[in-house]
Amino acid sequence: MLQGSTFSPLFTDFYQLTMAEAYFSSNKKNSVATFELFFRKCPFGGEYAVLAGYDLVRDILQNFRFSETDLDYLKSLSAFKNTRPDFFEALRTLDFKDVEILGIQEGEIVFPRTPLLQIRGPLYKTQLLESALLNAINFSTLVATYARRIRLVAGERSLVEFGLRRAQGPNGAMTAARSAYLGGFDATSNVLAGKNLGIPVVGTMAHSFIQSFWAVSEADLIWNGKNISTLFEKIKNEDGLSTNEGELGAFLAYAKAFPDNALLLVDTYNVLGSGIPNAIRIFKLLREMGHKNFGIRLDSGDLVYFSKQARQILDAAGFRDAKIFASNELDENIISSIQDQGAVIDSYGVGTHLVTALPQPALGGVYKLVELDSRPRMKISQQTEKLVLPCAKSVYRMIGKDEKMIADILMTCSEPAPVAGSQQLALHPADAFKRALIAPTKVEPLLQPLFAGGKFLEDKSLSEKRSWSLKRMEQVRPDITRQKNPTPYKVSISAKLKSLVDELYNQESPPIHLE
Amino acid sequence: MLQGSTFSPLFTDFYQLTMAEAYFSSNKKNSVATFELFFRKCPFGGEYAVLAGYDLVRDILQNFRFSETDLDYLKSLSAFKNTRPDFFEALRTLDFKDVEILGIQEGEIVFPRTPLLQIRGPLYKTQLLESALLNAINFSTLVATYARRIRLVAGERSLVEFGLRRAQGPNGAMTAARSAYLGGFDATSNVLAGKNLGIPVVGTMAHSFIQSFWAVSEADLIWNGKNISTLFEKIKNEDGLSTNEGELGAFLAYAKAFPDNALLLVDTYNVLGSGIPNAIRIFKLLREMGHKNFGIRLDSGDLVYFSKQARQILDAAGFRDAKIFASNELDENIISSIQDQGAVIDSYGVGTHLVTALPQPALGGVYKLVELDSRPRMKISQQTEKLVLPCAKSVYRMIGKDEKMIADILMTCSEPAPVAGSQQLALHPADAFKRALIAPTKVEPLLQPLFAGGKFLEDKSLSEKRSWSLKRMEQVRPDITRQKNPTPYKVSISAKLKSLVDELYNQESPPIHLE
Repeated sequence: MLQGSTFSPLFTDFYQLTMAEAYFSSNKKNSVATFELFFRKCPFGGEYAVLAGYDLVRDILQNFRFSETDLDYLKSLSAFKNTRPDFFEALRTLDFKDVEILGIQEGEIVFPRTPLLQIRGPLYKTQLLESALLNAINFSTLVATYARRIRLVAGERSLVEFGLRRAQGPNGAMTAARSAYLGGFDATSNVLAGKNLGIPVVGTMAHSFIQSFWAVSEADLIWNGKNISTLFEKIKNEDGLSTNEGELGAFLAYAKAFPDNALLLVDTYNVLGSGIPNAIRIFKLLREMGHKNFGIRLDSGDLVYFSKQARQILDAAGFRDAKIFASNELDENIISSIQDQGAVIDSYGVGTHLVTALPQPALGGVYKLVELDSRPRMKISQQTEKLVLPCAKSVYRMIGKDEKMIADILMTCSEPAPVAGSQQLALHPADAFKRALIAPTKVEPLLQPLFAGGKFLEDKSLSEKRSWSLKRMEQVRPDITRQKNPTPYKVSISAKLKSLVDELYNQESPPIHLE
Repeated sequence: MLQGSTFSPLFTDFYQLTMAEAYFSSNKKNSVATFELFFRKCPFGGEYAVLAGYDLVRDILQNFRFSETDLDYLKSLSAFKNTRPDFFEALRTLDFKDVEILGIQEGEIVFPRTPLLQIRGPLYKTQLLESALLNAINFSTLVATYARRIRLVAGERSLVEFGLRRAQGPNGAMTAARSAYLGGFDATSNVLAGKNLGIPVVGTMAHSFIQSFWAVSEADLIWNGKNISTLFEKIKNEDGLSTNEGELGAFLAYAKAFPDNALLLVDTYNVLGSGIPNAIRIFKLLREMGHKNFGIRLDSGDLVYFSKQARQILDAAGFRDAKIFASNELDENIISSIQDQGAVIDSYGVGTHLVTALPQPALGGVYKLVELDSRPRMKISQQTEKLVLPCAKSVYRMIGKDEKMIADILMTCSEPAPVAGSQQLALHPADAFKRALIAPTKVEPLLQPLFAGGKFLEDKSLSEKRSWSLKRMEQVRPDITRQKNPTPYKVSISAKLKSLVDELYNQESPPIHLE
């Protein structure tokens, strides 16, 4: 969210309201449903995702209240012209005290078909939550996952999100900044995300800043009451180079304002002929004045070539500590590729591709009815992989001796959990030939109470979740997280759940007759 | 925006603030700049775009005020630890009374390189606006353009946006709903967009609704005090078909709640074997009861095949007026393709692809300094097409005898406008061989006052803009708007502007020396 809560319960698809009304006016008013939210396929050709979006989930659950103007608007719609007043009265007094939500820890590494959220409560209430919850989880998880993928290729290098200007609306930018951080980025350029979410902010200068100066004389040469012009003139003449004077003036003005954060943009005119020599002059001046923490930013051209050249020149000039920051339409593949080519870069700025999740701009998370009034429900589909597994499930993650995740298993709620040290039969949900006996060293129940009695129960800080999530990656086998051709992680089901699937399938979808 | 204004001036890239400070602490505090916002390439392989995002632009300009907590946050940042109090004081008292913005009418058909917004005022203030304005225009224009492209392939058919659940955050969904409507969609599923923006809302039912019923008896058979069970039993037995009873019960419950909006989802179990026959039973009942306005929704399978079959069956049953609504991962190309194959569809629902502008999720709009203290500025680039045309420009659209747009021309502000009936020399900005003499029948200045004296000057309604924009399309030659291989529209420059470009280019970028 941008500032405070902006959530409105009208932020939903209209059919949620028409369905709610139809439940209400039929005999389904008091039906109790369980929905599960999950996705069927990992984004970006990968085999894992990083769960995110609980800030929005919390906002939705805590602020789902229809105002009088909301109700007036609904009453004004032709679809509702015959609707009985008790429906609107129910909306007016709506609360979620009788809705219980279990959820997987935000930041957890998650896989296809595993329920991320399990929502149980009155049918019409749980239906009303669908659209907003999907909106919350889908985009956040997508960006957190892409950020994690970039983190894996970037190794220890620092990563800064700066996609605000190309993000999909103001809130898209805020959600992206938060998810990028959770996914493993170190900082953002988005100041509001810094203030509201505590993410470190980073920023330097644009080309327009450099272009705003024509000469060194335009910069103020009195620093803390001391005239630096003689000193600077001496430094400037040492190298005997003829560089762009406006650029030098701009650097000087910037260095005066931020002597301890001089990260200078060197590609406005000519990286090697002007930008880097000018930056070195400024660094010499700053060092003379007792400052440190220097860096340059490359924003165009061949980042491999220029970063290698820049490193050599900076080192030769005695600035081994000066950092090289690179940007310019970077994405996971480009970062991976330029690193393979030996680019010498300390920090990457990633914008558009990250905040719009450009290689795949939507995650197909779904919210499916799995149980109604204690009867398991299963959505049949002609595509086997679209089949919805029935009943409110328990979800366990089985961990092996090496601390790595072996598999998740989905079970009916009435079954006992797998036991550490004992063998558990794990079946593939659709492929009859795939099954395994797993003897886990540790068994972790993944779904934990997230919302109950009208209260959101989770309150870890964003940076705690981030650290935990990054650490948690060590438990995922590298063949599952690798960039190219990863191995799918096993999400299995118990024999009892498998029997239920078969029974319901036969019941609801008898064999087709072909002649 | 979601509800009221959520804008904060901290919604910006951090470097805008560090640059502002550096301008402030150097001698640039009172410099006056002109920036222009434009894009270089049309999205989706097209040759036009539909300008959108002025709701956000208005919100930004009217609510750009730093709060005390904003200032406290900034002061807490290490980058600002040595910053003088007068900078923060300037932020505290910041207003935009001395900033003037010209803009092209929202909804206008726009082309690469034409300035969409021209922002003039104190350098540090105009710099502070950059990120938020780009965020506002980029995504909105992208979605409006994609919506327009879908409108062109869909012809007169009705179009409904329903991407909320896959949109990029809550605000992404709101911006997308508004832009889709401006672009030519007829309605949205997003209820909040209906309330806040006056867009018609549409919604029916999800598969979960159908799955919530097991039997006809679960629906309430007392309609307005009258028991309809005998009548319905009679209708049900007429066709002698065995269909899914739960589906029929769900349809009945829905029809009772919305007898005049019975749009029934027919693909939960079996479209031809159950969904359509059940829908027809309900339509017969409703017709008997004096209702009308029937329809079915197809959400999976072969839309060409099923829509043709459905049309035949509905017609044969006497429901020629029943509408066929189709959805399921639709986009511009799929709609175009299924229409070519003769699909019989009255209305399309478009979600994910539209709201995330999936074929191209970001528009590369830029905000460039073109003039500083009355001196024209030009950003040089090694890529000719990235060159920024200098000086605050006038922009004219030249219209021909047939009312079609001939070309736009960008001129220096000191030149007289092209005159209707007289010849105007129009040059290509980079290609020295491309030039034309144009004798327009009408000349339209595109940039109009949008913001002055602290006031936003535009107040057309969204639906006015939408109608005007759709009408305006008739003035664009069809070879420019066609889906495949369109012709580029001419955005030209005057001879005087060309001379200025050449002069500045030679001045700032002398020939490179090769040995």
